[in-house]
Amino acid sequence: MESKYISRCFELAKKGIGNVSPNPLVGCVIVKEGKVIGEGWHEKYGQPHAEVNAIRNSTEPIVDSTLYSNLEPCSHTNKKTPPCVPEIIKQKVAKVVISNIDPNPNVNGKGVGQLREAGIEVVTGIEEDKGNELNRFYFKYAKKRLPYITLKIAQTLDGKIAEFEGKQSWITGEESGKFVHSLRGIFDAVLIGANTVVVDDPLLTVRNTNGRNSLRIILDGNGSIPDTAKILNLEDNDKTLIVTSEAVPNYYTEAVKKKGVELLMLPMNGSNKIDLEELLREAGRRNISSILVEGGSNIFSQFVEEKLFDELIVLQSPKLFGKGLNSVELSEQVNMELINTEHLGSDLKMVFRKK
Amino acid sequence: MESKYISRCFELAKKGIGNVSPNPLVGCVIVKEGKVIGEGWHEKYGQPHAEVNAIRNSTEPIVDSTLYSNLEPCSHTNKKTPPCVPEIIKQKVAKVVISNIDPNPNVNGKGVGQLREAGIEVVTGIEEDKGNELNRFYFKYAKKRLPYITLKIAQTLDGKIAEFEGKQSWITGEESGKFVHSLRGIFDAVLIGANTVVVDDPLLTVRNTNGRNSLRIILDGNGSIPDTAKILNLEDNDKTLIVTSEAVPNYYTEAVKKKGVELLMLPMNGSNKIDLEELLREAGRRNISSILVEGGSNIFSQFVEEKLFDELIVLQSPKLFGKGLNSVELSEQVNMELINTEHLGSDLKMVFRKK
Repeated sequence: MESKYISRCFELAKKGIGNVSPNPLVGCVIVKEGKVIGEGWHEKYGQPHAEVNAIRNSTEPIVDSTLYSNLEPCSHTNKKTPPCVPEIIKQKVAKVVISNIDPNPNVNGKGVGQLREAGIEVVTGIEEDKGNELNRFYFKYAKKRLPYITLKIAQTLDGKIAEFEGKQSWITGEESGKFVHSLRGIFDAVLIGANTVVVDDPLLTVRNTNGRNSLRIILDGNGSIPDTAKILNLEDNDKTLIVTSEAVPNYYTEAVKKKGVELLMLPMNGSNKIDLEELLREAGRRNISSILVEGGSNIFSQFVEEKLFDELIVLQSPKLFGKGLNSVELSEQVNMELINTEHLGSDLKMVFRKK
Repeated sequence: MESKYISRCFELAKKGIGNVSPNPLVGCVIVKEGKVIGEGWHEKYGQPHAEVNAIRNSTEPIVDSTLYSNLEPCSHTNKKTPPCVPEIIKQKVAKVVISNIDPNPNVNGKGVGQLREAGIEVVTGIEEDKGNELNRFYFKYAKKRLPYITLKIAQTLDGKIAEFEGKQSWITGEESGKFVHSLRGIFDAVLIGANTVVVDDPLLTVRNTNGRNSLRIILDGNGSIPDTAKILNLEDNDKTLIVTSEAVPNYYTEAVKKKGVELLMLPMNGSNKIDLEELLREAGRRNISSILVEGGSNIFSQFVEEKLFDELIVLQSPKLFGKGLNSVELSEQVNMELINTEHLGSDLKMVFRKK
């Protein structure tokens, strides 16, 4: 029974995907005498939490009810909305059932503690793994103030991402393309390297599907993208961020700024590449809790080599190129765990996690 | 109903896997008044066919019954066992339901024709695709007198089969290894190149699973395997075949023959490689209806480049090497179709067919 209502919390929580970051995805169900009397979810960042929405939506008084929530109710006050715990106590809820403890240091067990002190029975850890999975972006961000990094590679069966370097190659099919657009919508930011802009000239917008445009981050340490690039000429240019270095000439920075695109200057590492760790820390400071890295080979290789990714999604077409540009070039091998697979048209989607 | 009994025929037919080649896998079910009264399958090459076994196993007279078989009953006499069609007619079966017409030019509709002439109702094409799948080795062999070729590649996610050329590398895990042994048991022959013998020194026997040893074919056009190779020193050395060319020195051929291993001399092509088309024709002449090609890179590349494969099974470990030996090197890309996937421990098995 507890699993059933917590699973319903997950379903409700997912309705917030794309709108609540860097907050967690939370759903809440209030049950009284075996009947659901209220449901709610965190709908939008800055707006009421799931618990408050469920309480408001309840069809009868929630005194003596059981409140299910996939995340520990919040107890801290240094934020946009009032904390949920005092409200739950005030409403005389009898029992609270949750999936995950909130790893945010401001909560992290304090919410559960306050509920118990008020005499409310609290059960934790129901469907914990599924909760961890649902809020994996948030959990990394809450613990480390760093965004969750997913690499998305479209490649052939033999690991090639282009027929040769500098050639735009369509590797995967229509269904995979549609999937990528829906994927972009759930990340706070998408990131590509300058080479990909020069070769593919992509828009990186969310198309053919519902979902908001994410922040577009371009790594261009050497200032090589032309000011005619589509990504510098979009209606919402304020959602493009060029990450570059002091090495670039003035005319480059002037040209980019004139487009209304923000420039972020970061240090380069010994290999003349943007310092990724510094970039991710800066992203965390900007409340970016998730980044989808879309290539190309140099960027993938840097993220994998420096072990700065959490997840790898491979869209693999049933082709052998037998030559061409490798998806990654590494100095040492990296082991991962295969989480799941799905057929997308004639392609195969595989999700891996860093071990 | 017809699907149900034909599916049972498939199940029965599979009991013959590994024992009936180059004959087809056939199962037979005899049904009278809604009751199964007899079942049988082709158990061993040279022994009775499925229909005859089912008739013999019947618990009551089969007059007026319906006979289900996944393959058209045979009508030809130039073979080891008497034809099934006259027996079915003699027993006064009322109706015959089959999945596939036998593509063997000696049958190929003649069996169905004779049954109909004798006044027996015949239904064909039930679960035809599943029948084609089950007997894919036989169907190619019966039509072309060429073996069905499956390439089996164990590779990393980025398409590498070794950390560097000449290095033996364990790519996949225990479950994949077990699968390979069971796979060998269903092929008439397994084939590898001389490089693989030199680097890996494999046995190519069927271990840790039930199944007979297949013929072991080694391509060694330049006579480079040492006479200490395990594959030349097995108990059943008569199940090893070394394919080489006139280019090899006498001491090589003498050494191999002394081991009791057969040598087959074939012409080399312009690239100083064994002529694969000639090899496959010779295999067909030897009644080899299926070959599992296990590598290495040169051999895979030659089979793919010359489009001489039917199926590719990839065992993919969740690793990125980021450098190393490519599974294939091709002059032009090859498209395939992904048929199915299965998790084997931490690896992923993917089955592709040539388009």
